[in-house]
Amino acid sequence: MSAGSPTPEPPTPALPTPYLRVDVDRLRANVERAAGAAATAGVALRPHAKTHKSVDVARLQLEAGAAGLTVATVGEAEAFAEAGVGDLFVAYPLWLTDALADRLRALADAGVRLAIGVDSVRGAQSAGRLLAGSGVEVVVEVDSGHHRSGCDPRLAGDVAAAAAGAIGVRGVFTFPGHSYSPDGRASAARDEAQALATARASLESAGLAVAVASGGSTPSLAHTETTVLDEVRPGVYVFGDAQQWELGSMPADDIALTAVATVVSHAGGRLVLDAGSKVLGADRAAYATGFGRLLEHPDARLVQLSEHHAVAELPGPLPALGSRVLVVPNHCCTAVNLADVLVPTVGGTPWPVTARGRNG
Amino acid sequence: MSAGSPTPEPPTPALPTPYLRVDVDRLRANVERAAGAAATAGVALRPHAKTHKSVDVARLQLEAGAAGLTVATVGEAEAFAEAGVGDLFVAYPLWLTDALADRLRALADAGVRLAIGVDSVRGAQSAGRLLAGSGVEVVVEVDSGHHRSGCDPRLAGDVAAAAAGAIGVRGVFTFPGHSYSPDGRASAARDEAQALATARASLESAGLAVAVASGGSTPSLAHTETTVLDEVRPGVYVFGDAQQWELGSMPADDIALTAVATVVSHAGGRLVLDAGSKVLGADRAAYATGFGRLLEHPDARLVQLSEHHAVAELPGPLPALGSRVLVVPNHCCTAVNLADVLVPTVGGTPWPVTARGRNG
Repeated sequence: MSAGSPTPEPPTPALPTPYLRVDVDRLRANVERAAGAAATAGVALRPHAKTHKSVDVARLQLEAGAAGLTVATVGEAEAFAEAGVGDLFVAYPLWLTDALADRLRALADAGVRLAIGVDSVRGAQSAGRLLAGSGVEVVVEVDSGHHRSGCDPRLAGDVAAAAAGAIGVRGVFTFPGHSYSPDGRASAARDEAQALATARASLESAGLAVAVASGGSTPSLAHTETTVLDEVRPGVYVFGDAQQWELGSMPADDIALTAVATVVSHAGGRLVLDAGSKVLGADRAAYATGFGRLLEHPDARLVQLSEHHAVAELPGPLPALGSRVLVVPNHCCTAVNLADVLVPTVGGTPWPVTARGRNG
Repeated sequence: MSAGSPTPEPPTPALPTPYLRVDVDRLRANVERAAGAAATAGVALRPHAKTHKSVDVARLQLEAGAAGLTVATVGEAEAFAEAGVGDLFVAYPLWLTDALADRLRALADAGVRLAIGVDSVRGAQSAGRLLAGSGVEVVVEVDSGHHRSGCDPRLAGDVAAAAAGAIGVRGVFTFPGHSYSPDGRASAARDEAQALATARASLESAGLAVAVASGGSTPSLAHTETTVLDEVRPGVYVFGDAQQWELGSMPADDIALTAVATVVSHAGGRLVLDAGSKVLGADRAAYATGFGRLLEHPDARLVQLSEHHAVAELPGPLPALGSRVLVVPNHCCTAVNLADVLVPTVGGTPWPVTARGRNG
């Protein structure tokens, strides 16, 4: 495994910028910290692999005790199944076509333990019809306050019942995405627990057992109510990013993913870098203080972002023209999906972003 | 050439969503309209290929009379040179390393007419030292009000003089990116002309000829001051996007690039689509009314965007679960860079996004 070398090495200076760099020591520490916390709390950890899309990172997670992986798309499931991952949950309310159902059946036939999300009676009926006899299970998605997908938790039993005659119902899940707000981490975890408890009761009223109540996000992880949740699915915790830094859920010292960028200009007395939105992604949440941060200059802010330019303002002397700086993307998941490889600080061989672009 | 079939065909219904669709009739009309306007105005059109990264689209542009292509990176230049494009301008203030200079020399040695940007005396000295005798020319970038890269136009002669002893100086260029504001299109074009006129005078004061004064952006294109500019470098005009639609620089009927998405949920009485930020990009300018638009539902707005969910609000009945809609990304350049292929409405064979991810 390419992450296995014990000897840290600096990134190859000759590598052309911009590129994504993984601090392997920090990555390992992040993986082990979350695995330890989940084990102590008695919840299963099923990390979301959309963050890294990397077989190398998935192996670290599974070796540390992850119960399986979460993915967002059938394409991601196929990529990780091909790499030998045997337990996958597509945490998304897929709208099944015959073609999509055939691909899921093929994965199950190959021995993968597989579940998908549903969030409506019609979606559940469709899954029951198209996946009957496949061994694929469904998990009912409920809305815990993020207001994206997911049904009302009180209706989870109706959704589950629409599939239950035809295929297995594993349980209920939610994504407490409203944890991504400056003061929302603990309250989102409370909402998550309440929604999952309501959903569990709704299934049980319909005579259906709930094997798994699954939630989790990186910002809310430390507040997980383990009396209700059986499983958590954080993704970002492996790398961290400027969002986690600014939300206070990960300190800068834990951030394992940066874009290595060259200072190409001092135009206007500011720092102009060659890593733009086609490297960092353009995510900018309402609470973000800029388009990204500089790891070694905590007072700097990326105040302007184009496809191939990031403009930073910072106090004090500017890093020299031609020097390299480490840029922390706002959202690591979208940055990773823009790269073909991640460059580890240990081992020398780039890690392929195997599931990059597997959106369908 | 794959765009050459005369018979329109509907997109293959079996193709899994999400994917990017190119309306070839609209694309051709956009290419020909800009080529005709440039010819009438007597300015050279050197389209920015970072928008499409596609050899198929580049061929349409060159067949319509483009003088060559603009690119943002050496990697893009290599991709288009390999496809046979013989005249390339890297409109970016590259900070040259030995490795980057070697790659540029190799392109020039292969017969490509090549120029790169410089925006500082030190950058120009470096280009002169590392590219002497290569045949590669430099073009001095000046800031016309976008305040990204580019030197003060009054200092353009100093920058040019720092290279002129060693390599050829072709002229001056700017990107009037502040045209991307609701009322900024005409005024940005005036700023562009003024900056280029000042820069031209600065070079001439230093005893240097200016063969090309180059500008252009899609929003400002109709306002180009052709008494000053010799060349324009718009990119987005080939496809259009929600930004151009909202700025008023391209009508919805000209938009040639959309993401085909499936309605996966009606959670909360809203439309949830399977094309998220990993397909559309997360660009959202201050003036944007949402994260994207729906081509066939002008009153709809994408009010929430995650990696694999776009949530739309619209008046009237929601399109059915499982139906497909055409999503207009806010910024076509970043959407294209997320895809491996573009699916044309004519010809059947997907067009590779050849220069995707070529950031360095």
